[in-house]
Amino acid sequence: MTKRVKEILGYYRSENPGVLSNLARLLNHGRLGGTGKLVILPVDQGFEHGPARSFAGNPPAYDPLYHFQLAIDAGCNAYAAPLGFLESGAAEYAGELPLILKLNNHDVLCDEKDPLPSQTASVKDALRLGCAAIGYTIYPGSSQARGMYQQLREIAEEAKSHGLAVVVWSYPRGTALSKAGETSLDVVAYAAQIAAQLGAHVIKVKPPTANLEQPEAKKAYEKNKVPMETLSERIRHVVQSAFDGKRIVIFSGGPMEGDEQLLGEIREIHKGGGYGSIVGRNSFQRQRQQGIELLQKIMSIYAG
Amino acid sequence: MTKRVKEILGYYRSENPGVLSNLARLLNHGRLGGTGKLVILPVDQGFEHGPARSFAGNPPAYDPLYHFQLAIDAGCNAYAAPLGFLESGAAEYAGELPLILKLNNHDVLCDEKDPLPSQTASVKDALRLGCAAIGYTIYPGSSQARGMYQQLREIAEEAKSHGLAVVVWSYPRGTALSKAGETSLDVVAYAAQIAAQLGAHVIKVKPPTANLEQPEAKKAYEKNKVPMETLSERIRHVVQSAFDGKRIVIFSGGPMEGDEQLLGEIREIHKGGGYGSIVGRNSFQRQRQQGIELLQKIMSIYAG
Amino acid sequence: MTKRVKEILGYYRSENPGVLSNLARLLNHGRLGGTGKLVILPVDQGFEHGPARSFAGNPPAYDPLYHFQLAIDAGCNAYAAPLGFLESGAAEYAGELPLILKLNNHDVLCDEKDPLPSQTASVKDALRLGCAAIGYTIYPGSSQARGMYQQLREIAEEAKSHGLAVVVWSYPRGTALSKAGETSLDVVAYAAQIAAQLGAHVIKVKPPTANLEQPEAKKAYEKNKVPMETLSERIRHVVQSAFDGKRIVIFSGGPMEGDEQLLGEIREIHKGGGYGSIVGRNSFQRQRQQGIELLQKIMSIYAG
Amino acid sequence: MTKRVKEILGYYRSENPGVLSNLARLLNHGRLGGTGKLVILPVDQGFEHGPARSFAGNPPAYDPLYHFQLAIDAGCNAYAAPLGFLESGAAEYAGELPLILKLNNHDVLCDEKDPLPSQTASVKDALRLGCAAIGYTIYPGSSQARGMYQQLREIAEEAKSHGLAVVVWSYPRGTALSKAGETSLDVVAYAAQIAAQLGAHVIKVKPPTANLEQPEAKKAYEKNKVPMETLSERIRHVVQSAFDGKRIVIFSGGPMEGDEQLLGEIREIHKGGGYGSIVGRNSFQRQRQQGIELLQKIMSIYAG
Amino acid sequence: MTKRVKEILGYYRSENPGVLSNLARLLNHGRLGGTGKLVILPVDQGFEHGPARSFAGNPPAYDPLYHFQLAIDAGCNAYAAPLGFLESGAAEYAGELPLILKLNNHDVLCDEKDPLPSQTASVKDALRLGCAAIGYTIYPGSSQARGMYQQLREIAEEAKSHGLAVVVWSYPRGTALSKAGETSLDVVAYAAQIAAQLGAHVIKVKPPTANLEQPEAKKAYEKNKVPMETLSERIRHVVQSAFDGKRIVIFSGGPMEGDEQLLGEIREIHKGGGYGSIVGRNSFQRQRQQGIELLQKIMSIYAG
Repeated sequence: MTKRVKEILGYYRSENPGVLSNLARLLNHGRLGGTGKLVILPVDQGFEHGPARSFAGNPPAYDPLYHFQLAIDAGCNAYAAPLGFLESGAAEYAGELPLILKLNNHDVLCDEKDPLPSQTASVKDALRLGCAAIGYTIYPGSSQARGMYQQLREIAEEAKSHGLAVVVWSYPRGTALSKAGETSLDVVAYAAQIAAQLGAHVIKVKPPTANLEQPEAKKAYEKNKVPMETLSERIRHVVQSAFDGKRIVIFSGGPMEGDEQLLGEIREIHKGGGYGSIVGRNSFQRQRQQGIELLQKIMSIYAG
Repeated sequence: MTKRVKEILGYYRSENPGVLSNLARLLNHGRLGGTGKLVILPVDQGFEHGPARSFAGNPPAYDPLYHFQLAIDAGCNAYAAPLGFLESGAAEYAGELPLILKLNNHDVLCDEKDPLPSQTASVKDALRLGCAAIGYTIYPGSSQARGMYQQLREIAEEAKSHGLAVVVWSYPRGTALSKAGETSLDVVAYAAQIAAQLGAHVIKVKPPTANLEQPEAKKAYEKNKVPMETLSERIRHVVQSAFDGKRIVIFSGGPMEGDEQLLGEIREIHKGGGYGSIVGRNSFQRQRQQGIELLQKIMSIYAG
Repeated sequence: MTKRVKEILGYYRSENPGVLSNLARLLNHGRLGGTGKLVILPVDQGFEHGPARSFAGNPPAYDPLYHFQLAIDAGCNAYAAPLGFLESGAAEYAGELPLILKLNNHDVLCDEKDPLPSQTASVKDALRLGCAAIGYTIYPGSSQARGMYQQLREIAEEAKSHGLAVVVWSYPRGTALSKAGETSLDVVAYAAQIAAQLGAHVIKVKPPTANLEQPEAKKAYEKNKVPMETLSERIRHVVQSAFDGKRIVIFSGGPMEGDEQLLGEIREIHKGGGYGSIVGRNSFQRQRQQGIELLQKIMSIYAG
Repeated sequence: MTKRVKEILGYYRSENPGVLSNLARLLNHGRLGGTGKLVILPVDQGFEHGPARSFAGNPPAYDPLYHFQLAIDAGCNAYAAPLGFLESGAAEYAGELPLILKLNNHDVLCDEKDPLPSQTASVKDALRLGCAAIGYTIYPGSSQARGMYQQLREIAEEAKSHGLAVVVWSYPRGTALSKAGETSLDVVAYAAQIAAQLGAHVIKVKPPTANLEQPEAKKAYEKNKVPMETLSERIRHVVQSAFDGKRIVIFSGGPMEGDEQLLGEIREIHKGGGYGSIVGRNSFQRQRQQGIELLQKIMSIYAG
Repeated sequence: MTKRVKEILGYYRSENPGVLSNLARLLNHGRLGGTGKLVILPVDQGFEHGPARSFAGNPPAYDPLYHFQLAIDAGCNAYAAPLGFLESGAAEYAGELPLILKLNNHDVLCDEKDPLPSQTASVKDALRLGCAAIGYTIYPGSSQARGMYQQLREIAEEAKSHGLAVVVWSYPRGTALSKAGETSLDVVAYAAQIAAQLGAHVIKVKPPTANLEQPEAKKAYEKNKVPMETLSERIRHVVQSAFDGKRIVIFSGGPMEGDEQLLGEIREIHKGGGYGSIVGRNSFQRQRQQGIELLQKIMSIYAG
């Protein structure tokens, strides 16, 4: 166990040894194992966006086993997916890499301005599938956020008591926010704080823009001259907003125009003290070898 | 155990000894221990207002351990916060000071005229974290108040049967009230009464203005010549409205223009028979040493 | 919090903050608070031996409130008793000192060679009475030990999940042991080990004699030349047998011929690294003032 | 409420107001209402001894309504009986007098040296029948005592949480005791102590003889010169053994040779500080009017 | 994942992926990780034999943390111990190595011919402590075996549904067996079969002697000329008896006269197709460096 991983586990001293063990499994697996950094492969787009939008560009990715193998071959710390995808490969890949079961999901066949995902799997499912953590998405800013927060609370309590780690996707969204607001610095930092206060061990947010959405927040940023010009400064602020860096915050890769732009963004995340990335579409929506290469370039940045 | 603390505990004779013990822990800890007065440090602004608005003015306060240490060093009676903040330090600070776990919270990413907070932690969480009390916010005046009252009822029943004290933040708010009405004397007194009737052991309200919001209430105040000119008179009325002083009523510090103004207000609360203050922003949104000094000035007033 | 108490709490890092808080309450209360030593007043003799044998020598002790007051006035760390005694005073003395509810008891109206105590109170009772810990007696060596171990297991799991500490009275007894064997060094050390392995946080045993009961154990003591001539050496061995001193082990006072003999024994316990004493009959079976004086002499020894 | 009843309720301050209310109902009803003394009519002999042995001498007593009316007409504080008897009259006599539902019973069709009664009704039954208390019999000294203690523990916890008072019949009996031992002073005092420690609010025992059964106890009585020559002295000792008089202890009338002998015994109970009597066979195994007269003579003694 | 580990996991295809993952954790950890062989450190002797017999020869081993570190430094696949030992270090060593929580234990303070261990921890404990497996001891041949088989059945069902592996210590013992019979080939093979039929994933037995205990079995061995002259032949037969090698069977080291004798035995186990060893006393009852060296010599044999 490296000193850095010990230090990170020290941030979670109130948790039971089961939770600590599973956090250690996430932090110690794959190419970045032991560095305190994580690159996770998430594949929930089939449910969230539909299969053709997700996989038609790289048809082998329709196969759930494709993603297990991709995460292993690229050396990711963990693989996260909904129930069906994990059930498809969990036996065959048992013990190969840490799994994160997404316990709620949302589709766009009936899309809403203020979406409320469905609970699609249970803590018991995560245990029988051998997962290290459960994943859960909240949409702060949605008029439906209350339902998600409360369901997360119940699920997280059950997960922790059974020794599972809790990973929260915190994606601001809803009628109360402008489109730009969803990734504005104040809102992303707030979303990270909310997830941390709800008891998340690992928090996933989007890289923030220099936009400020809420007038009251804007005043605070301006008055206190919060550095926010560069992405690394903004990352630093988001990490700070998650308990001064005492919660693991990782960032999504998002839809990119080019690899160089993405890698530049990763360098900024790394520079700003981000704990890592969760890279879905940029890894499986291209040919397998290219996906692995991109993931490994990303890991190389985090390996420093 | 001082005579005054004994007397206060006597107001709660229907409660089981577990609840009495935890009320005693709140009343006997810190610099005001034994006086029957309380100064509590609450830090839920990260969730309620967002991280930058809460902590950018004093960046060390992003760190959850900062607040445990601040409450201890200043000699507060207790520290109140949401789940994530308490989980971060409860093991390290175990046994150092009484903790109050806020069981519901509300963010302003989707603000509503009639807000309904989310339940964000459980009575079981409070027990495993070693808390002396649970905290819960209600918004009397909200069209959503029924939901809060009913959830509080369930939570309070469970908390009391497990020996935990119940602290209620009672903040009038909602479409039915004018902005001025939220702090008008009749409304604040009414909010204190509602919290007391719902079974709260400790009630937190805002210091009331001389405004009167509801016409029917106004008649009663005028007909009966309720003294309300000075803040101390209004405090006295609010304390009276919480079972003639037989429930602990404490007052928020709120956003102040200057320390002298705040300390003047505290002197009025003390003069009017208030049980103490809950001072968040004025304590952690300034440099640590200044925060401690202000808290100690406040305590000196209550110490008499 | 003293360094020593911090160090002791560090031995229990797998426990939740609730358990740590309650261990801290035991360690930080009374005259020995903060020293890492404990003197606890236990009064279960009324149930275990009958009222006249317990209290006729000092009739005020028939009154349950007597013992609360005695523990407070002497400056004990905690007071331990069965349900009825705690129910009698828990409201009146709420918040005055840490309480330990004995959850099982045994009477001698139908005495057996292999006794099996009855569960006489619950974890829920301990919470409603405001206790810091539950107490439980096991009789290793009894043919009935299995039933006690299993009941303790269930109760301890429930207690810990609710944040309560677990104190185990481990008294070897039963047809398989000779009378001398009950306090022989090998057997007492074994009894301490069993309690520790069953998950006890605090273990109470009797001071061991230089006798060795079990032939196989005798060989080990002789072969390894375990020092056992003086009581302090034997105490050291028992403390070592409870996880090398990483579990709190306290010793009963037992029936003594004279105070000097008892105080001599306490000095040996202290010298041998014992964590303290649990002194029942020697404290309440004499006049109140004399009981307090004896307890304070004992505390002075532990205070070093 | 008289000062004496207030004082008695003060002994039960840890209990919830529901329990206190029901204790007050017992103490405030009937001719002795307010005096702090009780005379209760118990009729469980039909189950315990069989119908003919119980009722053939006064055939109207076969009718369950007979006993409700008898208790009312005589001015008893309460009426105690098994499920069937109470179900027969609880509606008709609803609100007329406090009822105590015996929750366990034992018959002699299969008698044993070490009897274990059956649970024959529930706390829920007591609530639906409008009872003020539940009654439960334990046989200290029986090798089966453990089962009774544990069942009582569970039942008492449930009863108290529902606001019911708990009355325990504590009758020493079993292979470990001689016949004389069942009523010997040491054993009866011990039985009272056990019931009190188990959380009983009201304890019923038999008037003790001057016999001493247990050798270890005998030493304590002799060494401490416990006064025990007269019945009143022995009563005083038993009351003292029930928490120094801080638990209500009442005495059975037992099978008597003559009324004068019984009344003499009552006078001694009264003189010794007993809280009252429970008079079954002497009241309903004679003609109605004679039964009422005897009960009233007994009450006159207690009325002082 | 090596081909051999894949093959072994294939023997358990009916189990859920959680169980497979945890079996993989056991097979992939430590110096033998990936070979399909296991060397496990078990330390339950403190409970089973008493502390001095277990640790006096190497006093640092009284400390529970010693064993975690020993297992790590020697490169063992896993560490198995009772509740107290695991609770002491599970937080500090979280994520360092697979843990096996022994759920039942037996002491020798009241030794019996037909022992029945006590359940001393739960599946829930194993989850909160982050264990990969639960351990359970059965004594085939004991008149109490039924109780153990049934409790194992319940516990194994619960463990598997939560994704935990099940390790069974199968030790023939009881009045029905001669002392020599406990390690006779027919009996050990039978014990392995019973554990396998009860659903064990990993089975621990003692190395069998060439003795044959049961007359009916003897006939079968002789008639069919089962090879049993050398230890490797007997090991082969035991492994065959555990589903033709499709269950993991490991062998205890037992008390040895010399290291060479032990290593010779290990070579025979390896030659006979045994899956590995569980080495307790020979590893921690000597100086730390010597223990590590011996464990590594054993691993070298299994590494082939």
